[in-house]
Amino acid sequence: MTRPSAYLDHAATTPMLPEAIEAMTEQLKRVGNPSSLHAAGRQVRRVVEESRETIADALGARPSEVVFTSGGTEADNLAIKGLYWARQPRRRVLISSVEHHAALDPAHWLATSQGAEVELLEVDPYGRVHPDTLRAAIERDPGSVAMISIMWANNEVGTIQPVRVLAAIARDHGIPFHTDAVQAIGQLPVSFAESGADALTLTGHKVGGPMGVGALLLARGLTPVSVQHGGGQERDVRSGTLDAPAIAGLAAAVSTAVKHQETQSRRLTALRDELIERVRQAVPDVILNGDPANRLPGNAHFSFPGCEGDALLMLLDAKGVECSTGSACSAGVAQPSHVLLAMGADAAAARGSLRFTLGHTSTREDVDRLIEVLPAAVERARRAGLS
Amino acid sequence: MTRPSAYLDHAATTPMLPEAIEAMTEQLKRVGNPSSLHAAGRQVRRVVEESRETIADALGARPSEVVFTSGGTEADNLAIKGLYWARQPRRRVLISSVEHHAALDPAHWLATSQGAEVELLEVDPYGRVHPDTLRAAIERDPGSVAMISIMWANNEVGTIQPVRVLAAIARDHGIPFHTDAVQAIGQLPVSFAESGADALTLTGHKVGGPMGVGALLLARGLTPVSVQHGGGQERDVRSGTLDAPAIAGLAAAVSTAVKHQETQSRRLTALRDELIERVRQAVPDVILNGDPANRLPGNAHFSFPGCEGDALLMLLDAKGVECSTGSACSAGVAQPSHVLLAMGADAAAARGSLRFTLGHTSTREDVDRLIEVLPAAVERARRAGLS
Repeated sequence: MTRPSAYLDHAATTPMLPEAIEAMTEQLKRVGNPSSLHAAGRQVRRVVEESRETIADALGARPSEVVFTSGGTEADNLAIKGLYWARQPRRRVLISSVEHHAALDPAHWLATSQGAEVELLEVDPYGRVHPDTLRAAIERDPGSVAMISIMWANNEVGTIQPVRVLAAIARDHGIPFHTDAVQAIGQLPVSFAESGADALTLTGHKVGGPMGVGALLLARGLTPVSVQHGGGQERDVRSGTLDAPAIAGLAAAVSTAVKHQETQSRRLTALRDELIERVRQAVPDVILNGDPANRLPGNAHFSFPGCEGDALLMLLDAKGVECSTGSACSAGVAQPSHVLLAMGADAAAARGSLRFTLGHTSTREDVDRLIEVLPAAVERARRAGLS
Repeated sequence: MTRPSAYLDHAATTPMLPEAIEAMTEQLKRVGNPSSLHAAGRQVRRVVEESRETIADALGARPSEVVFTSGGTEADNLAIKGLYWARQPRRRVLISSVEHHAALDPAHWLATSQGAEVELLEVDPYGRVHPDTLRAAIERDPGSVAMISIMWANNEVGTIQPVRVLAAIARDHGIPFHTDAVQAIGQLPVSFAESGADALTLTGHKVGGPMGVGALLLARGLTPVSVQHGGGQERDVRSGTLDAPAIAGLAAAVSTAVKHQETQSRRLTALRDELIERVRQAVPDVILNGDPANRLPGNAHFSFPGCEGDALLMLLDAKGVECSTGSACSAGVAQPSHVLLAMGADAAAARGSLRFTLGHTSTREDVDRLIEVLPAAVERARRAGLS
């Protein structure tokens, strides 16, 4: 008699919403390249453009500000490299030290091979970029800053950045400001217009939509250099056949997630607080990482002193609880999280950390399951750590 | 009583095969990031790795030679930019003058912003690159050639290049050879190993698979610089969450298309030859473009003297016949095809051209429909052209 496992890894990827599956599978049966001029092409083009409007409406953007991509990583690459190149000869790229690798690594590559000077902005022990930190970095030489990238909310520890304040500082200096909002959409209210950001990354599979699709919202008048060249789709900013079925699924997911965001966030916040409280009771010396107040509703991130995170993850997995040591993208790589290190954690605490993330399918039973198996798993991981 | 339209634009995009729809939709219902370490992640990882093996088997490659991308455009960008950067300080890029924009445009960007010297290799009136042309271009200064890109078969006129001979010449000089085989797979026998190419582009939606997914086959030992940086997936050659449902659909499509390739090609060649013959009877002064012998089984490409291609396309579309003036990607842009110009056509003939492409759902009824409406449409387009 096996019970289904408790999936506590929604920040890595979320089950698809029924609305998104339906919109996508419906479209898989149709034929037509949205760039084709004939009726079949025009019908598919209509699906793409309606999806664009739906996404823009849900996120406080104009349809013309939506550039479809293959996902969050591509959108981050386009924003960071594309705006860097577009703003030459400016060489400085300001980026928070707790960004996802999808933002950090393009910036590093610009530094190693395109002459960029990348400055990692410090964060406080909660993982937040202080507005003064950004202001000081800019003011050292405002005219040399090509672009700024600071995420909306952190994928590991869930810390929410003061994006509006940060974007306003960038705007005061006329510097394009990009934010990776992959983890924020559906969990927090996100309005592109109100954020003041010039570019915003979203992706399907973190909001109940399909993998392999995302978008960069891009303020009017801002034209990054293409990272993917070709047929000239998406007003020549991003070439490649538009993936109409995935785009239809993305639109269904974004609109559903945004429609239910407030209710869902309230539910997840309560469930997350219960999870945190019960984990603390079960493992009294556990440390909660990230900002106690300004954190994503679905995120709980702990350090378990004396444990190796990977070992604990596997022990929990064996008992039907699925979670993560940090970013799924670097899973399997046994190195302490750059996010925790930037927040001032020591390497041992960073290595002993686990992330539990909730989403639309999460229930109290998932939390029960975790609490049921956690103490024994922690004890075993500690013994293994000592041997 | 409306009849379904005759879809004669399979080179733009092909209806999905039932096997591919099933494999993909099955996977849409599951959750798990293939980079996650827990059971859900491992199950999805298994689907990805089995798909990788299926694709490798079908195309004469090793599983470790398959790098998944978001499609053909991304694979071409990765091959051309990635190999160019990896081979610095070599500056020359040799590329045929009839490539798809997904290959030409990355090369042009390398020239305008990364210091590359791009040389467009001439083609004969049939659109073929003569081996001596490539040899001469290399031998002007072999040590300065970073990479070579010549497509397997042309997307507009269907001309098949002598890839094996061309790749052997590149190999003699130790220069990486990339071929865009997007149009070839499923229509021609394609073996990566036997081709002698070092890199090969494929995409899902041209072989009955999903949009938004493709791959670059990449010979062992060849490591392009990443174009999309991030979490380090695909052995750090291509970052971004692996789109497991689309990859499963791609594998199902490639294996099905390759399994039926011989039968299908024979059927399509006969149907295509019938289409050509009947178009010639219906419009006696029509000109068949491309290689009369070495052409894709599904491709027929004509110039209709005195017509504007776009006008003729819309007239046919109104009568339920869907075709293309050339590459779908540049559809809507009223400029003569660079492919036809490179083959020596004059601008008027290039503008008056139409492409009819057949695929797995094509039948004789589609050809009947075309022939039924073509003469009147041509006559009308000619009158419009005169006025």
